[in-house]
Amino acid sequence: MSENTEYIDNRLIVNCLPLTDDERRDFISAVDGTDARIEFVGNPMERGTMSWHARVPAELRSRATAVIGNIPPDECAQYPHLEWLQTWSAGVDRYVAPGVLGDGVRVTNASGAYGQTVSEHLFAMMWSLMRNIPMYARQQSEHRWHDLGRALSPAGATVLVVGTGDIGSHFATLCKAVGARTVGVRRDPSKPADGIDEMHGFDDLDALLPTADVVALVVPAAPDTHHLIDGRRLQMMKSTAVLLNAGRGTAVDPIALARALSEDQLHGAGLDVTEPEPLPADSPLWDEPHCLITPHVAGGNHLEVTERRIVAIALENTRRYAAGEPLINVRR
Amino acid sequence: MSENTEYIDNRLIVNCLPLTDDERRDFISAVDGTDARIEFVGNPMERGTMSWHARVPAELRSRATAVIGNIPPDECAQYPHLEWLQTWSAGVDRYVAPGVLGDGVRVTNASGAYGQTVSEHLFAMMWSLMRNIPMYARQQSEHRWHDLGRALSPAGATVLVVGTGDIGSHFATLCKAVGARTVGVRRDPSKPADGIDEMHGFDDLDALLPTADVVALVVPAAPDTHHLIDGRRLQMMKSTAVLLNAGRGTAVDPIALARALSEDQLHGAGLDVTEPEPLPADSPLWDEPHCLITPHVAGGNHLEVTERRIVAIALENTRRYAAGEPLINVRR
Repeated sequence: MSENTEYIDNRLIVNCLPLTDDERRDFISAVDGTDARIEFVGNPMERGTMSWHARVPAELRSRATAVIGNIPPDECAQYPHLEWLQTWSAGVDRYVAPGVLGDGVRVTNASGAYGQTVSEHLFAMMWSLMRNIPMYARQQSEHRWHDLGRALSPAGATVLVVGTGDIGSHFATLCKAVGARTVGVRRDPSKPADGIDEMHGFDDLDALLPTADVVALVVPAAPDTHHLIDGRRLQMMKSTAVLLNAGRGTAVDPIALARALSEDQLHGAGLDVTEPEPLPADSPLWDEPHCLITPHVAGGNHLEVTERRIVAIALENTRRYAAGEPLINVRR
Repeated sequence: MSENTEYIDNRLIVNCLPLTDDERRDFISAVDGTDARIEFVGNPMERGTMSWHARVPAELRSRATAVIGNIPPDECAQYPHLEWLQTWSAGVDRYVAPGVLGDGVRVTNASGAYGQTVSEHLFAMMWSLMRNIPMYARQQSEHRWHDLGRALSPAGATVLVVGTGDIGSHFATLCKAVGARTVGVRRDPSKPADGIDEMHGFDDLDALLPTADVVALVVPAAPDTHHLIDGRRLQMMKSTAVLLNAGRGTAVDPIALARALSEDQLHGAGLDVTEPEPLPADSPLWDEPHCLITPHVAGGNHLEVTERRIVAIALENTRRYAAGEPLINVRR
């Protein structure tokens, strides 16, 4: 068999991850003894940055049977032999959209890599609002030493987590660890989740809102989560409640929220996602003292551990792909 | 025995706490069946405010054998029959100073009531700095949607707690609950503390600083804690470290800290206490983006639970005083 023939017959994994030398060796070991080969095209300099790019040379596109990385969806047609795409994102909407990839192409994602970073950001927003830290940070700009009064604590509080997937469950676990009672809301309340003391369906949301000291939203964008928290439901909340959103911005009616905050209907709101994004410069939410806005930074690669988990998922699937075993994190 | 004689013979507790009706009843029950009586002079309207006042009518001063409340030290001489003073503060310096109270007067404090609020404020400052929330709050004032990059996590981090009393121990317990490893420094390292994985003496501080991801200072003011963290020690810290101070402002050299922050020698600093207080308007710390300043609000009555604990301590000592049992929280 000539070298040329071998290349064409073999399965070729194009790996776009920004890897360390050790990690590259791990990937090479993962295909050792199989017919699969790996080409590394990632830029190690992108490690630790918020934007990774999947740049695959044209010559490799024509031969790749697998790609690890979020290649531009409009280039997918240039991969005639593609069998498997491993994304480094959790979302794969752009790849599973009709016509982007051939019917037989399997798509796996990095779900599980982002639970810690998003839940910890929610947790940090919760504590910040409870201790009035955003307001102290702003008053610091004026060199002002002034006591803003009462603070709150999650110890003994009731935390309502709406959406109890990877992120919601991780957030609930953090809250329990510091003394909160956790109540979950999910589509199928018969399914338990780690960290949730008590699970309910969406039908119970109205009954639960008046009992919650913290309401954390981590629901995906969907027709029935659009403005899930509207003016009516904001009025049901405690005046000392903290509202958090790190799911989809559309889950909260921004006009109703600005009004509720201006009328002291709740203690504060922490939004990592808004409707729309970026939040328009004329949104009244920017200037609400009890609103904390972060620009969709809960997820992504903001924590080093997220990068390591993405690599670990990709490595495990590389081993499975090479060995002909079923992949994990299959989305299609 | 006439009512008048009974008054003079009886022990009289003047209670300056802002109490609820239920709490008043608890105090009355605590002296039931004894010769002790209670006069309530507290203002319930002060409940939930940051400043409680102990205003005792002159007529009661002359008869009081016990007072619950931080009466003005210069009025102490007006209590000829005083046997016991219960403060609502943790500090009693002003009462145990020479010449303020008669030699036989016992002084008890509210130590233990403040551990939760101070440790939770430290914890909130830590999370805020790790997720860059003070910077996001300031950029929010400019209606700016901009990713500030890398965040940090206490999960898997090493947290160095300098001073492992009630507050330090409580803070360490919170950090452990979210996945940190905790190292303590105290005068007597043979004494363990809840929440501390590994205890050291002050001699080990230089060796420990380069290993710490978080350094939390909760040491009292004392000659040997003055500028405990100076320019030399700031240079020993990791460039990703977070420094927190909620003990005494004098534990950190403010000029050295401002310089270290401006040179990116550490990730950030959270100061609830400063040298001096209030922090002067021309301090360079105010404008350091990675510095979070809160105006000595970690303690006090910022949490409702603190008030309930002060009342509980005073109630227990009232019962003990009336029954002739040894008091708790004795400072003199």
